[in-house]
Amino acid sequence: MRDNIKLIKVREAIHADNDAMADRLREELKASRTCLINLMSSPGAGKTSLLLQTTAALKEKLRMAVIEADIDSTVDAELIAASGIEAIQLQTGGFCHLDVPMVRQGLDSLDIGKLDLIFIENVGNLVCPAEFDTGAALNVMILSVPEGDDKPLKYPLMFSKCDVLIVNKIDYLETPLTDFNLAAMEKRVRKINGTIQIFPVSCRTGQGIGDWTDWLYRRISVQ
Amino acid sequence: MRDNIKLIKVREAIHADNDAMADRLREELKASRTCLINLMSSPGAGKTSLLLQTTAALKEKLRMAVIEADIDSTVDAELIAASGIEAIQLQTGGFCHLDVPMVRQGLDSLDIGKLDLIFIENVGNLVCPAEFDTGAALNVMILSVPEGDDKPLKYPLMFSKCDVLIVNKIDYLETPLTDFNLAAMEKRVRKINGTIQIFPVSCRTGQGIGDWTDWLYRRISVQ
Repeated sequence: MRDNIKLIKVREAIHADNDAMADRLREELKASRTCLINLMSSPGAGKTSLLLQTTAALKEKLRMAVIEADIDSTVDAELIAASGIEAIQLQTGGFCHLDVPMVRQGLDSLDIGKLDLIFIENVGNLVCPAEFDTGAALNVMILSVPEGDDKPLKYPLMFSKCDVLIVNKIDYLETPLTDFNLAAMEKRVRKINGTIQIFPVSCRTGQGIGDWTDWLYRRISVQ
Repeated sequence: MRDNIKLIKVREAIHADNDAMADRLREELKASRTCLINLMSSPGAGKTSLLLQTTAALKEKLRMAVIEADIDSTVDAELIAASGIEAIQLQTGGFCHLDVPMVRQGLDSLDIGKLDLIFIENVGNLVCPAEFDTGAALNVMILSVPEGDDKPLKYPLMFSKCDVLIVNKIDYLETPLTDFNLAAMEKRVRKINGTIQIFPVSCRTGQGIGDWTDWLYRRISVQ
């Protein structure tokens, strides 16, 4: 570290008794053979776009629904519902993440026994959602190319907690607008998460979506 | 709202006794004629890039320092310090926003009386930082073009709290990669914040930076 930087550690322990509830929910969903996926990212990285692409690719094979978390609007749920997929809108009223009681409120409005796959679109935030287990079987995050390849250094908890990393907006890599280095980013991620699955995609062009949905379908089929 | 969306409101009141401390800090800084600016955005929107451009443009005229908040790394403070500007790194250890006691820890390491302008680079997050007054005289946020023009609908508190909106990465507007509509976004912002100053810029090319730094210099000079 350079001499002219002073380093001050501001520590705050974050406690959650949410974990036992999450384990219980996971068991219930496993018993009904319903896979719950918690999708997280920064604002604007492409969560809703990924859900639209993913549900379009799998809708002949799987029965799906989406629980949308949004602070105030219903923009995302409108888009999902317009595509023919059942959507529940949770308005968090300013809350920065979802926990198990909030997810349960969403699930209570769904007929879980008739669903193979439920997506939670978490609040757009790389910090708080990483701290709270939602009861999901799979944690999936999106990093979009314009955000930069240094994000694993800055939000290590999120990258360490996820089973899958979708790298979205890879069509930006072909322009001079960004110096994002995919190999360098992957190296940074794998240093903190040795088992993470990484799928580079463009939700705009559809590139790479098949690799992700094939993997997801196989993963769900063997549950 | 469409028929096939169910709406559930998850409310949680967020209390903060931070406001009185913020007012006190603002008075102290005013008395020493030091302007404190709180810079907020999503991860990867360009906070550090904007600080590098802004301090480069103003360094002959103003005495400046930067307080960097980061969960874990010192990446941003290293960049600022390398440009010759004094940088304080606050490591928040997982905390999702800055409050007044944290900002004070940073300020205690600076010689405030000798500084005209201090920037706080808040945690990359459009949710939590909007809830906590830092004691800054000016709240500035960045929205970057790849995040999408719908963000004022989704993070209204942040847009309503800020004095200045920097729209970064406007060089992306010239490509087919994004359908971001600057006029539509401005209209959405002005509906929730009638007095906000908006500066479209590209920190990569320097476009628009002069308009922002000229405005900022005038604003500080008349304090």
